[in-house]
Amino acid sequence: MTSPHTSPPLPADRLEELAEFAQTLAHAAAKATLPYFRQPMAVEDKEGKAGFDPVTIADRNAEQAMRTLIEEHYPDHGIIGEEFGTKPSRSGPYWVLDPIDGTRAFVAGLPSWGTLIAFNDGTRPVIGVVAQPYIGEVFLGINGSGICRSSLNGQIIKTRPCAALGRATLSTTGLNFFTDPEREAFLALEKEAPITRYGFDCYAYAILATGTIDLVVEAGLEPYDIQALIPLIEGAGGHITTWRGGDAQQGGRVIAAGDSTLHAQILERLRSVEQK
Amino acid sequence: MTSPHTSPPLPADRLEELAEFAQTLAHAAAKATLPYFRQPMAVEDKEGKAGFDPVTIADRNAEQAMRTLIEEHYPDHGIIGEEFGTKPSRSGPYWVLDPIDGTRAFVAGLPSWGTLIAFNDGTRPVIGVVAQPYIGEVFLGINGSGICRSSLNGQIIKTRPCAALGRATLSTTGLNFFTDPEREAFLALEKEAPITRYGFDCYAYAILATGTIDLVVEAGLEPYDIQALIPLIEGAGGHITTWRGGDAQQGGRVIAAGDSTLHAQILERLRSVEQK
Repeated sequence: MTSPHTSPPLPADRLEELAEFAQTLAHAAAKATLPYFRQPMAVEDKEGKAGFDPVTIADRNAEQAMRTLIEEHYPDHGIIGEEFGTKPSRSGPYWVLDPIDGTRAFVAGLPSWGTLIAFNDGTRPVIGVVAQPYIGEVFLGINGSGICRSSLNGQIIKTRPCAALGRATLSTTGLNFFTDPEREAFLALEKEAPITRYGFDCYAYAILATGTIDLVVEAGLEPYDIQALIPLIEGAGGHITTWRGGDAQQGGRVIAAGDSTLHAQILERLRSVEQK
Repeated sequence: MTSPHTSPPLPADRLEELAEFAQTLAHAAAKATLPYFRQPMAVEDKEGKAGFDPVTIADRNAEQAMRTLIEEHYPDHGIIGEEFGTKPSRSGPYWVLDPIDGTRAFVAGLPSWGTLIAFNDGTRPVIGVVAQPYIGEVFLGINGSGICRSSLNGQIIKTRPCAALGRATLSTTGLNFFTDPEREAFLALEKEAPITRYGFDCYAYAILATGTIDLVVEAGLEPYDIQALIPLIEGAGGHITTWRGGDAQQGGRVIAAGDSTLHAQILERLRSVEQK
């Protein structure tokens, strides 16, 4: 869906309007997810690449609520969603939606899932929202503008300096998302990092933007898993690429680091890990 | 510190008074921890059994705040605390405190740590509080009374039925807490459970009591890691023992399950795992 032409940068007031709308989408999704959180519900298996891959009525209702609002307010925009696929853009820009990133955590009653909303201008994601409505947090990033904030307290967030893996806090969602050589490479990083935390899905990237996690290394991601996180991390001063240093917007294998020196070091180590 | 005599059960109004006080302790701890959460702070290494074992000024201030209140209100009671050791009881009962269970998560800015407060009548923990002040949750359990609630919404919580590992949601904090045979036994459980989540420390037990996690299996626990969780899980209808079926209050290897059939099955499988 990447447009062949490079769009001119959007004016600041247009970005603010779209960022406001992205938060309206997050609010609509919360109304669809929260009534099911920690409640008995049917869980289906989508049979994903990392084994059991649950989906619930909450995922579907939340994506549907967001799609309806987009179609009403921006009928020309495209949509890529985890649950209902792709609606092509008539004008270039499109929205990338993951109603519940971390459905395993959602089903387990753990508040580490999030709703991911990206606005892609046709060439790259320029607005990203990560919302964790049970805690009441909305993290918003706008690419290039330096705007990156957490709505819980309106605080401007930024990544922290941390130039060495030996002082870094590392995170990944689960080893089951890695191939064997990828897992081996990750475990070598874990051995050097003083603190590693598993299981936080998109929330770990939001906390990297907030400045208390230094490094997130993952693989097997889809575009809807990552696009909202790019403006958030770049807006907060961090760096996010594939394991080979390329644009991360198509997903796959991703390195996110708060510090550019750390990012370069990890890239050097992971660049040559065999890819399927 | 376990008393040789069995105490008579405390009357209900005395239990309610002590439970109220336990929540006052949680509130005092929150005032000491929250100002440091997601803020730059010095992190020392206690060099625990699972590698880097961080401790911060927030751990120490929170325990000190709770000890001061206990000494003021119940000077005869003993105290066992993670950071400042043991004050013997003059009358039998004592408090068991872990100001921040999950200091790794605390340092990483992840809201999966908790303040653990147990009141032990001299023979067993009868009141347990798990507080996660960033989210604003306090889970309270009173043994034998059937009182178990979450203060976020005052909701009465209970474990859910789940009689088979093949339908269970499983959790453990990290594989690095296990010896090799323990890890192997855990990984065999993980293979059968459709969902496994890592990294939630005490919070996973609170969510087991809330009814969306079915099984928590851990090892290498201290008394202050587990005593608050026993009244919570038993109060919510769950079962918690060592891997050999004994009283879990001294820590070590622990199985917590929401369903008695599942607990018995897991006990059968883990009972013979070699112990150091």
